[in-house]
Amino acid sequence: MTGPGSAPDPARTAMLTALAASERVRGTTSPNPPVGCVVLDAAGDVAGTGATQPPGGPHAEVMALAAAGERARGGTAVVTLEPCTHTGRTPPCTSALLAAGVARVVHAVSDPNPKAAGGAEVLRAAGIQVESGLLGEQVARGPLRAWLHFARTGRPHVTWKYAASLDGRSAAADGSSKWISSATSRAEVHELRGRVDAIVAGTGTVLADDPQLTAREADGGPRPRQPLRVVVGDRPVPDGARVLDDSAATITLPGGDPVAVLDELARRGVVDVLLEGGPTLAGAFVAAERVDRVLAYLAPALLGSGPAALGDAGVASVSQAWWWDIEETTMSGPDVRVSAVPARR
Amino acid sequence: MTGPGSAPDPARTAMLTALAASERVRGTTSPNPPVGCVVLDAAGDVAGTGATQPPGGPHAEVMALAAAGERARGGTAVVTLEPCTHTGRTPPCTSALLAAGVARVVHAVSDPNPKAAGGAEVLRAAGIQVESGLLGEQVARGPLRAWLHFARTGRPHVTWKYAASLDGRSAAADGSSKWISSATSRAEVHELRGRVDAIVAGTGTVLADDPQLTAREADGGPRPRQPLRVVVGDRPVPDGARVLDDSAATITLPGGDPVAVLDELARRGVVDVLLEGGPTLAGAFVAAERVDRVLAYLAPALLGSGPAALGDAGVASVSQAWWWDIEETTMSGPDVRVSAVPARR
Repeated sequence: MTGPGSAPDPARTAMLTALAASERVRGTTSPNPPVGCVVLDAAGDVAGTGATQPPGGPHAEVMALAAAGERARGGTAVVTLEPCTHTGRTPPCTSALLAAGVARVVHAVSDPNPKAAGGAEVLRAAGIQVESGLLGEQVARGPLRAWLHFARTGRPHVTWKYAASLDGRSAAADGSSKWISSATSRAEVHELRGRVDAIVAGTGTVLADDPQLTAREADGGPRPRQPLRVVVGDRPVPDGARVLDDSAATITLPGGDPVAVLDELARRGVVDVLLEGGPTLAGAFVAAERVDRVLAYLAPALLGSGPAALGDAGVASVSQAWWWDIEETTMSGPDVRVSAVPARR
Repeated sequence: MTGPGSAPDPARTAMLTALAASERVRGTTSPNPPVGCVVLDAAGDVAGTGATQPPGGPHAEVMALAAAGERARGGTAVVTLEPCTHTGRTPPCTSALLAAGVARVVHAVSDPNPKAAGGAEVLRAAGIQVESGLLGEQVARGPLRAWLHFARTGRPHVTWKYAASLDGRSAAADGSSKWISSATSRAEVHELRGRVDAIVAGTGTVLADDPQLTAREADGGPRPRQPLRVVVGDRPVPDGARVLDDSAATITLPGGDPVAVLDELARRGVVDVLLEGGPTLAGAFVAAERVDRVLAYLAPALLGSGPAALGDAGVASVSQAWWWDIEETTMSGPDVRVSAVPARR
């Protein structure tokens, strides 16, 4: 056994397992957070693993405790988010942890939600050893990113994803855009679609490209989970549009004000939004400071003409540019994949 | 001592030193290659280091042998390029190596130039142990890249460098572009300018931005070496333009045909060219397949309007896109720096 503050390796390994478990339920838990939990027995061996069930179902701790059974007594619960003290559709997780008799709780991220927070305090008051912050940044940037944003701001988290040539064109002069980004990048985007709550696109894109806006496997078949499709704008969408087919739910929101769109989506329990064009809608979201992450797939191609990925964002001079912090640059097959978050001003 | 094919660590260390020595003379040797050489004595200790002197001056091997003196006898010459057998303005390096009595020669890259090649053969015939390929890729992509290209194709090597926002704009809607890229990136570009033979820009850029096109230090002062400034196009350049000041030599080439421009530069002994815009000239070079490397500095900014970095490159449809292989993606301060070479077709 080691003392508080020096997390032993079993807890770290368990947190990575909890993180992976939470990733698997991403997109199925909103408006609740996708949480993962591993219960270690008193000897430090894995006794049970769990993740948040769909709304109304048990939280991660309860799932992991159920799997661990009696082995939880005197053990450690390793969980990606501070256990809740809140009685909602399910009882508080702190009560479940106390009832199971765990001796120690290690969580990655503290709960910013005032209604649910205080879990660490309740547990400590009951004599349980509580540690916070293990792999905190990894969890906060990963599976809990959107939910933490929602908890702090009341707004869904928006990822603007675009694919463009290295010179910033989302299509060639004749409008053709198949395929600027690689098969690897397209597969990654479909996987991402399968993990968000909603995909948002403008009527201009729907009319121009007739996209289905679904999450598909490499063979073209649908992925098990489909996000809500949200079409924004005033141009009428024809009945035969693929975005209106029965492969997923679709809503149409008139106007194009990002603030109003996100208010409506928040009302519907949407936490994690993938904004997928076109340039006009993306420009409006950027100008309204309603893009929380840019995810750019830059194909190693030069076009020299054709529509730009981003339309008017209210910038007339470089001094008005929207600045970002590059979070990560990686290769996605032959493409450069850039992830950026708003620059701290 | 180890046998051929298993280069011992002293040779590898020496090659890194030779590589660094060659980097320091980049931009001062054209049309000769910037080569570095380290002579190790028989015990494997460094006896002398040298690099190619300006045209007409001694080659790297001769410089290193002179520094090593009698210690070269029985030693190893580690050199970035296969020693030449060619009598030009200076005698062949193979003769100098034989006269100095070295027992072994290790070179990174073989000489593709038929006039100078065969150095390894000449040395072997004289009983010297010759090894090739140590750090070959690093040298071929680094200091010898432009010269190897020139030796193989007869054309100067062209790096198209551009700075743009993440969405591909080289300036804002009002034309302002100071500063899209970071101080780090700008310093890097000035360093690069100091190592090429010529900077090429179009008359459009000269008229719009009035650039000086010189290599400057961080404090704004001139770097020790200035490349030739080449202004391409038919629009008249006003007398007061900064590109015509006395800080470096400038030539003006009418028309805008990249092939003709490069022919003329090759005639003048230019091996390494930095193409710095604007979009029209860059588009013409891309369309003529006369860009050998793309070096993009992508600032973490979104503009949504303003001129694109690349103009018409003869692409109407995605099927006609110009494809590249990403060679390296790194951070340059806050910017994403992408280096790409033409895709193998």
